[in-house]
Amino acid sequence: MTTTINAIKKPNAEAPFEFGTIERRDPLEHDVVIDIKFAGICHSDIHQAREEWGKAIFPMVPGHEIAGIVTEVGSGVTKYQVGDRVGVGCFVDSCRECENCKAGEEQFCTKGNVATYNGRQYSGEETYGGYSDTVVVDENYVLGIPEGIDLDIAAPLLCAGITTYSPLKHWGAGPGKKVAIVGMGGLGHMGVKIAAALGAEVTVLSQSLSKEEDGKAFGAHHYYATKDAETFTKLRGEFDLIINTVSADIDVDAYLSTLALNGSLVFVGAPEKPQSFRAFSLIGGRRSLAGSNIGGIRETQEMLDFCAEHGIGATVEVISADQVDEAYDRVVKSDVRYRFVIDTATIPASA
Amino acid sequence: MTTTINAIKKPNAEAPFEFGTIERRDPLEHDVVIDIKFAGICHSDIHQAREEWGKAIFPMVPGHEIAGIVTEVGSGVTKYQVGDRVGVGCFVDSCRECENCKAGEEQFCTKGNVATYNGRQYSGEETYGGYSDTVVVDENYVLGIPEGIDLDIAAPLLCAGITTYSPLKHWGAGPGKKVAIVGMGGLGHMGVKIAAALGAEVTVLSQSLSKEEDGKAFGAHHYYATKDAETFTKLRGEFDLIINTVSADIDVDAYLSTLALNGSLVFVGAPEKPQSFRAFSLIGGRRSLAGSNIGGIRETQEMLDFCAEHGIGATVEVISADQVDEAYDRVVKSDVRYRFVIDTATIPASA
Repeated sequence: MTTTINAIKKPNAEAPFEFGTIERRDPLEHDVVIDIKFAGICHSDIHQAREEWGKAIFPMVPGHEIAGIVTEVGSGVTKYQVGDRVGVGCFVDSCRECENCKAGEEQFCTKGNVATYNGRQYSGEETYGGYSDTVVVDENYVLGIPEGIDLDIAAPLLCAGITTYSPLKHWGAGPGKKVAIVGMGGLGHMGVKIAAALGAEVTVLSQSLSKEEDGKAFGAHHYYATKDAETFTKLRGEFDLIINTVSADIDVDAYLSTLALNGSLVFVGAPEKPQSFRAFSLIGGRRSLAGSNIGGIRETQEMLDFCAEHGIGATVEVISADQVDEAYDRVVKSDVRYRFVIDTATIPASA
Repeated sequence: MTTTINAIKKPNAEAPFEFGTIERRDPLEHDVVIDIKFAGICHSDIHQAREEWGKAIFPMVPGHEIAGIVTEVGSGVTKYQVGDRVGVGCFVDSCRECENCKAGEEQFCTKGNVATYNGRQYSGEETYGGYSDTVVVDENYVLGIPEGIDLDIAAPLLCAGITTYSPLKHWGAGPGKKVAIVGMGGLGHMGVKIAAALGAEVTVLSQSLSKEEDGKAFGAHHYYATKDAETFTKLRGEFDLIINTVSADIDVDAYLSTLALNGSLVFVGAPEKPQSFRAFSLIGGRRSLAGSNIGGIRETQEMLDFCAEHGIGATVEVISADQVDEAYDRVVKSDVRYRFVIDTATIPASA
């Protein structure tokens, strides 16, 4: 039993997006049917839609920053009801049995969780993401979006928000801590807002000073251009935590030199090529290089509640369904302030 | 006011060691004069004596794994008295005023601490290490060696012991934790003994199985050859903590793949060349790459007390003063089980 719905589809890695239809399963006992209102465009959508991260499943309907309204629930659903404001992030199922799932860290499911798109359900069925009219998801993988965050600015929280919130919490960002955010893109601008709301002293390290005014408006206390070589000299030993949101190659040793004793440089973006470091850069100051991957369902809900409480949403440019190809090109050029969000009401009816 | 004493000296990076004399200051108010009994040979002695780590100060008297007996104390000394069994490690002074010194982390003194040899006192005077008859050190940088550890097997604890103890404690090695020690040399064999005494489940990752019997006698529960490619497949996701004691290049991503969620790979040896890693290796499992550098005075004393309590000393080959050049060559070939220690009574009198 499936329902045909409208979607923005990529037929293969090279072709532009086109409008068409996909089938969504009718709700099972624990499923929630969501009328998608907005879907954010994440840089990882582009990597996958252009097959830059290895073989992908086509046709592809990207989108793992989904915000919408519940329109139907399965008979066993207890967490949500029709009319609820909800979101879906990067995965729509996990094994629920491994140590990590049991610990609420489904992002590290040892069986491999089910990606929201470009993935397969454990039954084998392909998954399709948020660039579409509706999505059907098990209630345990649906997040509640609190009143007080509009759905367009909430959508990017489901990936960009949790991707920065999780490491900021894990590595103890808060009052008395000096935190640097590398990059002021979709992830970086969320990192600044959240780190500032957590009470940390926040510095942006961006290629240039072109977004300084925005950065400070988002809560940054300091803003430095990394293309200015003096920046690294000035900031030697400064930070307790650096979140690197950039997927370009970086001079790892230069960034490590700006860490204080016991400081950590955490990658949330993944450069394509291997990065290099000198062991002395770690040894001299008991420093760490680490990585963090989105967050679990429980922590994602905590992040949404935190953002609502602090009046935080993404800063977005809402686009229509026919602007997705252009938006992709602009994301690659870093020409977006700060996240594109598709208004899914603009997807034309093919069904 | 100085006293002329006998020492094993390296005139320059290329020449062999020779016997000669150096001047030691007469004890100041807070100084302890130590009759050196044994001095360990650390791989970093070789790097410095052969000028492999950049320009060094010659003539050089290496040695920062020093064990001996107090023979004289300055008028203001309260911590030690004549006859005490004591040790000296990698530094003999620090600024005592920076945040790290105040926190008892003098190894990270922001002014730079005073290295036991190949360094300079803050007054400018060169420092000479333990390959000599005596050493004069401020009481605050002298460690007490508990009864129950012979001085020959205690000497290597002052560097190899604390270098492994500190990261094992910092990253929580203990019951329920799976710890791997990479390399079964001077550092590695201490890592195995200490990790086992801390209650961790200990695995040795060594190039071959040639030292397996020793490793298990030291307390290792498992022993794998890293030249066997299957090792990394078998051990996928296994360890909470890996201490890498090897200064050769390693396949960082392969080792990272053997870490469990939140696991850390900690470098205590410093490969000469930059190492490379893929950010995905860190992101997939919130893993860390870190470094650790010896330990502070307080923690070094804690380590010595811990070793005495658990009957732990280094496993050593005691050599005479005329065997140092040969010992260096053997260390470079990994032909030592497991630490050379110079019996300083064999240094001939030149004074």
